[in-house]
Amino acid sequence: MSTIDWNSRFSHRMSGVKKSFIREILKVTENPSVISFAGGLPSPELFPVEEMAEAAAYVLKQNGRNALQYSTTEGFLPLREWIAARYLKRFGLVVHPDEIVITTGSQQGLDLLGKVFINPGDRLMIERPGYLGAIQAFSIYEPKFVGIESGENGVNTLDLQAALEEAPGKMLYTVPNFQNPSGSTFDRATREKTAALADKHGLLVIEDDPYGELRYRGTDLPPMRQFGAPGVLLGSFSKLVAPGLRVGWICAPREVLAKITVAKQATDLHTDIFAQRVIHRYLSTCDLDAHLTKLRSVYGERINAMHAAFQRYMPAGARCNLPEGGMFLWATLPVGTSAHALFDKAAANQVAFVPGSAFYVDNGGLNSMRLNFTNTEIPRIDEGMRRLAAAYAELA
Amino acid sequence: MSTIDWNSRFSHRMSGVKKSFIREILKVTENPSVISFAGGLPSPELFPVEEMAEAAAYVLKQNGRNALQYSTTEGFLPLREWIAARYLKRFGLVVHPDEIVITTGSQQGLDLLGKVFINPGDRLMIERPGYLGAIQAFSIYEPKFVGIESGENGVNTLDLQAALEEAPGKMLYTVPNFQNPSGSTFDRATREKTAALADKHGLLVIEDDPYGELRYRGTDLPPMRQFGAPGVLLGSFSKLVAPGLRVGWICAPREVLAKITVAKQATDLHTDIFAQRVIHRYLSTCDLDAHLTKLRSVYGERINAMHAAFQRYMPAGARCNLPEGGMFLWATLPVGTSAHALFDKAAANQVAFVPGSAFYVDNGGLNSMRLNFTNTEIPRIDEGMRRLAAAYAELA
Repeated sequence: MSTIDWNSRFSHRMSGVKKSFIREILKVTENPSVISFAGGLPSPELFPVEEMAEAAAYVLKQNGRNALQYSTTEGFLPLREWIAARYLKRFGLVVHPDEIVITTGSQQGLDLLGKVFINPGDRLMIERPGYLGAIQAFSIYEPKFVGIESGENGVNTLDLQAALEEAPGKMLYTVPNFQNPSGSTFDRATREKTAALADKHGLLVIEDDPYGELRYRGTDLPPMRQFGAPGVLLGSFSKLVAPGLRVGWICAPREVLAKITVAKQATDLHTDIFAQRVIHRYLSTCDLDAHLTKLRSVYGERINAMHAAFQRYMPAGARCNLPEGGMFLWATLPVGTSAHALFDKAAANQVAFVPGSAFYVDNGGLNSMRLNFTNTEIPRIDEGMRRLAAAYAELA
Repeated sequence: MSTIDWNSRFSHRMSGVKKSFIREILKVTENPSVISFAGGLPSPELFPVEEMAEAAAYVLKQNGRNALQYSTTEGFLPLREWIAARYLKRFGLVVHPDEIVITTGSQQGLDLLGKVFINPGDRLMIERPGYLGAIQAFSIYEPKFVGIESGENGVNTLDLQAALEEAPGKMLYTVPNFQNPSGSTFDRATREKTAALADKHGLLVIEDDPYGELRYRGTDLPPMRQFGAPGVLLGSFSKLVAPGLRVGWICAPREVLAKITVAKQATDLHTDIFAQRVIHRYLSTCDLDAHLTKLRSVYGERINAMHAAFQRYMPAGARCNLPEGGMFLWATLPVGTSAHALFDKAAANQVAFVPGSAFYVDNGGLNSMRLNFTNTEIPRIDEGMRRLAAAYAELA
């Protein structure tokens, strides 16, 4: 067999897709003596393992053949009904189950939206910093990314307005609640203004909301769709129940879902129907709200502990926020301090985080960092922050 | 909120992706009094439901937290080791587990190969007739499809050679064993010649093999990769164990898998790890070969029954083959007879099939039809074929 030069065969679209730096970080964090604030994992000791085992046993006993057979691309109807009922309960948002398609994690929602909407060169507005998984998923469809400044209250709507007046935009991708990586949440005024701009300019708004139910303080705000934004909602059971099963959803108008369904059929036929039925059985028989109360209690203590430890150990020039929910703190080092250089020192001190520049489409954020608190117990959060401060001292 | 003209927003790439006609047929076959030869479903009464329930219970009891947590993009290592061992056992094919990535069904393998290899306009050779799911998956990446005549012994290698001499080809997509839809299998000479042409022309050969272990007569032949074809093998547990869990795999050289892994991370992060662990537990503790013997026995009787009923009831001008394995018979009506017209008459007579033109990228096969035998018990196969013959008589 001749030797193939595979690199000459790969598609052009893949040349713009960066391997995630987070995967590289995993090599550091595989060492169990390293304290990792780098990942984005929920805490596995909080998974409802026994309840899921009961649900799986029930599903296979009662509907085994249906749970193992091919199924519909749209997904398990009772699960879609549960999701619609949850939107109604949480926000008074009226959604028909036909406006929901189950996806293989909400990451697949991003891929399908890219497939269905993005032509090469389309202007795709994204928060600055933005969610890395979305940058990766959309990159494959070769948009022109337009970074929109984002702060404590969400996107800077003046920046968004200027970008839209400069040239039309195809879509705005946002994580409006407890954003990954920055932890920031769109306030009401930002939601209203963003929705009005989107409506005026015909901008499709993607509201990706994996963390919305992980709120530790403050009050929920409705999706921008409630304020009139023409848009798509993405959701996921990864943080509510468990991520390993890869069950998420897209909520969108029927015309959009008709196209999404064709794309999904071509992509994986349908999402694991056994997993969909197990999650639905869990949701039908267990008390999700009690489970979420437990998650919020544990994570709420951890976010406070990490914020306090940051204040305690890190020097005055370094700052970190205290988000109202989610999984991440966002920290800023004094301008001119490289978070990548700190990462190397920190790795030597057996603590890890994600340098913030990974979340910028334009090489920004060199002095910023993302810190995950959900998957580390409080004594190790404290010890990890001591190590980080020691690494910082070595750097300075 | 303004009314959005969604059609003006969709990407160009989706305009070439047809909604599957098979999905339209489902509307006919939802009626339980319709006998359907249209689907491509394994027989659910043969699913190892109890064994899967035991496997699921074990996985959640022993490794519940790991089975519910985020996992690696490449997939569960012990499952990849099992697949590698199976290739060695079946064909003496030496594959390292690092040359295997678990996918969300082998349908996702097609999507990832499209993402990673196909630039718009690339020449993609495909059997004529070809697998509809592959046509759909690849269409999204806008290749130029080049249909290669395919008969009882696989692709016509003279036709393949002529196509390659006309212009370079990026890849050849094949289902070399018991093809969907035609049931045909590449014989040894076709494998050798195809491999030699691929090697000479630097053509990437995709060997999609979901049915290879469902052989009812004759002898297994090794993949074209064994004959030197530079290529990729796709596999699936859908027909071996159960399709609902959506677990398949890509086997390819490491450089290819490195790129596939980046694409898969962007597409769905990873395949359901609970499903992967459950299937692995099933494979480790149950006797897959005994299970396959049972499948082959039941399906082998059904294929014979359908072939005999076709001969018995259908008029002399209609012909159908008797494949050595798989899930489908391929039938041909006299030239000039429209299988679509027969479909309408057949639906009125409460029997369904897939008109063959669905499997052509160039409007061929108007007088052909695909008949599934795996999911219908023998008395209903006989009755369905009577109804089909009655529909045919009405048409003539």
